[in-house]
Amino acid sequence: MKKPIIAFVGLGAMGLHSARRLVQAGFEVRGFDLQPASLQALAQAGGMVCTSAAEAVQGASHAVLFVVNGKQAEQVIFGANGLVDGATLASSPLTIISCVTMSPTEAAALGARCTARNWTFLDAPVSGGMVGAEQGTLTIMAAGEREAIESCRPLFAAISRRLMVAGERAGQGAMVKAINQLLCGVHLAAAGEAMAMAQRAGLDLQAVFDVVSQSAAGSWMLSDRGPRMVQGSFDAPTSAVDIFVKDLGIVQDIARELRFPAPLSASALQSFLGSSGAGNGKKDDAAVMQYYASFQP
Amino acid sequence: MKKPIIAFVGLGAMGLHSARRLVQAGFEVRGFDLQPASLQALAQAGGMVCTSAAEAVQGASHAVLFVVNGKQAEQVIFGANGLVDGATLASSPLTIISCVTMSPTEAAALGARCTARNWTFLDAPVSGGMVGAEQGTLTIMAAGEREAIESCRPLFAAISRRLMVAGERAGQGAMVKAINQLLCGVHLAAAGEAMAMAQRAGLDLQAVFDVVSQSAAGSWMLSDRGPRMVQGSFDAPTSAVDIFVKDLGIVQDIARELRFPAPLSASALQSFLGSSGAGNGKKDDAAVMQYYASFQP
Repeated sequence: MKKPIIAFVGLGAMGLHSARRLVQAGFEVRGFDLQPASLQALAQAGGMVCTSAAEAVQGASHAVLFVVNGKQAEQVIFGANGLVDGATLASSPLTIISCVTMSPTEAAALGARCTARNWTFLDAPVSGGMVGAEQGTLTIMAAGEREAIESCRPLFAAISRRLMVAGERAGQGAMVKAINQLLCGVHLAAAGEAMAMAQRAGLDLQAVFDVVSQSAAGSWMLSDRGPRMVQGSFDAPTSAVDIFVKDLGIVQDIARELRFPAPLSASALQSFLGSSGAGNGKKDDAAVMQYYASFQP
Repeated sequence: MKKPIIAFVGLGAMGLHSARRLVQAGFEVRGFDLQPASLQALAQAGGMVCTSAAEAVQGASHAVLFVVNGKQAEQVIFGANGLVDGATLASSPLTIISCVTMSPTEAAALGARCTARNWTFLDAPVSGGMVGAEQGTLTIMAAGEREAIESCRPLFAAISRRLMVAGERAGQGAMVKAINQLLCGVHLAAAGEAMAMAQRAGLDLQAVFDVVSQSAAGSWMLSDRGPRMVQGSFDAPTSAVDIFVKDLGIVQDIARELRFPAPLSASALQSFLGSSGAGNGKKDDAAVMQYYASFQP
């Protein structure tokens, strides 16, 4: 059976790695991104470079979206030179796989608009960061028509290690991802608060990291970002501070909508906002430690 | 070489397991606790039951303390029928190994008073909970005279898997433990906030737990306490809500002293206080989820 042709839009840190893995798995990947450097990297990986989402979707049965937020996803689908513009030339009813982190409300709205066109929309955000994308060890939280999810398993398998079926309605994947980001964001901010406090107390940061990361105090985020906090090295971002400004913002939007007080993630968001507001929005997200360390006596 | 005789005070959930492991490792353990049931359990494990700390220390070269807080530790050492009262009959200059979680200030003060008596005081709090104590996989964060720590390695090895030397001054172990508890407490409260929010959003809690605990959102606390949150089962405590009221209280005391803003752990403390204030202080600490879930529309 011939592998489907994939339109792939959004070739940033995570998207590029995932697109490359699809190429390696034998999919024909037609990619688009606004950054010429990303397109060049895709070409080197064996993907076909396109000049727009409308061009990328020509002949494709599936479109994978790895853009930054819901607004960009909407533009890619419904905006000028978007998937809809190129749709008349798509080979068959399109299945859109959105790996974008957005609010459940946004995902549900995009899903409804796609359904109205007889397109299939899978709300399938991912977790695992740039390293997970590179190694194909992402976790996918997919919601949408059960059959469509099942038929996409080979595609998911090429870029991820774990597929969680979050439900049958677009928005349910986004909700699970928000819960995931609540934990990631709080754990990362907690690592910053703890390491900055250890520093203030005059402890040996490396020794503290070595012991707490291996004890009941451990978290994936602490193990991954802690070494950069020990080194004070935040200039080679794998994921930026501003990503958590966005993701914890989504968490807080949901919390308000649900009338659910979420004070920990609210506090964590403030620290990422403080970090971004101090000019560190584009730095590695481990730089949130500097926010806690910025109060000097 | 004959193993030293150990006076062991504080035979609660963690102390009893550690005392049992010392007996199994060939130490002669002379134990005391205010609870008759604990003394009976020690006797069954092969330890010698004593009627006071003063009696336990007779013939002993080392005293291990596993009581709940600094105030109790002070009572055990300097109070009526305490170690000092029994000291004239101790076989040699006593080495006190305090595995108690207390503030750095308290630990430093106890250390100074012991030094004034020519006793050795090791500030050696532990992490790993009841399960870690049972399995001998605790982490110990020890501060005090380097030589004394080295000479106690066989004892530490019997009850723990990892020994971190936090420094040469009593109080430095307590400081590392506070950093550790900051992370544990925030991670546990974050698990409560996340799981309660997932519940409110109508998600399948077991499915959410399965995916987030294995993703970048994972933490030791989430893996350990999450299943009890999914089950809503908080009546068989391995560690109680009130322990985090105490430990995060210490974190906040330190933060105030250092003039270090620690908003995340401050917020986490409020959730444990809220949980305790609602009558759940003696419940399993995973019950902190109920605090977040208590706001019903």
